[in-house]
Amino acid sequence: MPLSWDQPIKEELRMVEEEIMRNARSGDPLLTEIATYVVGSGGKRMRPGMALLSFRAVGGTDLEKTIRAAAAFELIHSATLVHDDINDGAETRRGNTAVYRKYGTQRALITGDFLFVKGFRLGGLIQSDIIVEMVADACSRMAESEMLQTMTENDACMPLETYIRIITGKTAKPIEASAQVGAYLGGGSADQIAGLGTFGLNIGLAFQIVDDILDIRGKESDLGKGRGMDILDGKANLPLMIAMQGHYPSSARLREIYSKRGKTEEEVNEALELVLATDALDVAMGHAKDLRLKALKGLEALPESEYKDALRALADTVLARDR
Amino acid sequence: MPLSWDQPIKEELRMVEEEIMRNARSGDPLLTEIATYVVGSGGKRMRPGMALLSFRAVGGTDLEKTIRAAAAFELIHSATLVHDDINDGAETRRGNTAVYRKYGTQRALITGDFLFVKGFRLGGLIQSDIIVEMVADACSRMAESEMLQTMTENDACMPLETYIRIITGKTAKPIEASAQVGAYLGGGSADQIAGLGTFGLNIGLAFQIVDDILDIRGKESDLGKGRGMDILDGKANLPLMIAMQGHYPSSARLREIYSKRGKTEEEVNEALELVLATDALDVAMGHAKDLRLKALKGLEALPESEYKDALRALADTVLARDR
Repeated sequence: MPLSWDQPIKEELRMVEEEIMRNARSGDPLLTEIATYVVGSGGKRMRPGMALLSFRAVGGTDLEKTIRAAAAFELIHSATLVHDDINDGAETRRGNTAVYRKYGTQRALITGDFLFVKGFRLGGLIQSDIIVEMVADACSRMAESEMLQTMTENDACMPLETYIRIITGKTAKPIEASAQVGAYLGGGSADQIAGLGTFGLNIGLAFQIVDDILDIRGKESDLGKGRGMDILDGKANLPLMIAMQGHYPSSARLREIYSKRGKTEEEVNEALELVLATDALDVAMGHAKDLRLKALKGLEALPESEYKDALRALADTVLARDR
Repeated sequence: MPLSWDQPIKEELRMVEEEIMRNARSGDPLLTEIATYVVGSGGKRMRPGMALLSFRAVGGTDLEKTIRAAAAFELIHSATLVHDDINDGAETRRGNTAVYRKYGTQRALITGDFLFVKGFRLGGLIQSDIIVEMVADACSRMAESEMLQTMTENDACMPLETYIRIITGKTAKPIEASAQVGAYLGGGSADQIAGLGTFGLNIGLAFQIVDDILDIRGKESDLGKGRGMDILDGKANLPLMIAMQGHYPSSARLREIYSKRGKTEEEVNEALELVLATDALDVAMGHAKDLRLKALKGLEALPESEYKDALRALADTVLARDR
């Protein structure tokens, strides 16, 4: 097993990075500055990684289109983060000041649109109906999930299936699409493309659940943001939803706090302590571990290779963010 | 000459309308509702019209791709209007409540992103590098111009060439691209594609100048919004810029008002009266008329046809918005 999941694709990731940076440039110096700030702020590059490893794992060799597709996914992802931060009123992103805080909402909105355009341009230049549909479908699902999210804010009675729908569209679908597009461009069989899709989807779901767990107990230094943001914003969060279930003694008080608009810092801290006093984090982590196992089943159609090992390492890394 | 510019392409425009409406549907009922509200709110459909007339004017017959491209331009245009209204704090759009006022900023932002995705999807499905580049280039220029606009707000000393750059990117480039894409898909010669590009670009510039004139003197019933919005928001506006030139006695007072942030209604009204007391509207209209003549020159490479007549009628209609 490689030391880290990106070990066998370091050179490919460097090429994607160049492609991303090239696409952040524009005819307007300020737009270039802001776009570069966004894409250069040290994301995990999980979507490009997923596309590249899937491409290599099915034996793909003609790299050019996959570099473009990987960069397209990251540009579109970056665009949505900029717009999300406006919508969430977030202070920071990846440890840096959120774009709209640094440059203002107008300019952040424009820069997000610009990065969307650049991402779709790259995706469109691959000239494949299937790729365009995969990318557009993932993006439409993202928008649908974000819309659903706006309807469920502070809703202490949200069914678990609504939560799953939200994180599927918001996080898992774009990662699934990255894996499928990589496998498709690598010439994978239908089984391999479907299997890597299963891998991406379930790893994406696990990733979001671990994100939720970190929002309850994570260190600020790890995430670049404070704890309890989901509680404050009334966002769906799995451990929180588990702890709000009726059989926990503190669930009524938790639901009371969560349902409020304009929570105080004291209330958010009280809610965090109430969740931490239950086994909700362990239960949530159990779900993430189950999803990892489901994901690994998706790799069965692949021959053994350093890339398959790297995909396993990626799955482990997603879970290990819990540490 | 036809009665109205859309006379010979009524059936094609109906097909574009269906394509647009089909693309406003999503898996989320609220997203579908908002997207339908946006695209169904009675725009002029100038970009689809430009694409369809250009297509027909060069003798194009295979309509399918052009319907898609025309719908793509309108979807992307609608997306930018939704985001623009957020950025401008606009009250109304096309006589209806602005989307973000009716549904909130978060949902408006998400719906704009969704319409972007749908537009680029349609553009990408045409599977042509040239089309993708034309659409993406126009959209990048739009973002650059909007960024430039944020840097020149309330700037009473903005050079005229900056104004031209802003309206070129914001309004003229997408209309130029619509005409070029239509001509390209219709199998037009290089001369015809370039000529229709010239037509679209100059008509787009004239359109924006007439828009500026209407912002100074237009009737509310015509535009669905009050006068003086550009002055209030500190936006570039040609007659205003003309009237701020030094040789007008009232230019100093106009510049003083325009430079302010947070203008009062009285100040906006005073500025409107000062502009109306000059010949700035006539001078601006003179520019629009010159641009119309430049645009018509772009039609020289086309054979006579009812579509060429309709393009001329479109040019007249753009100018006649002044009435």
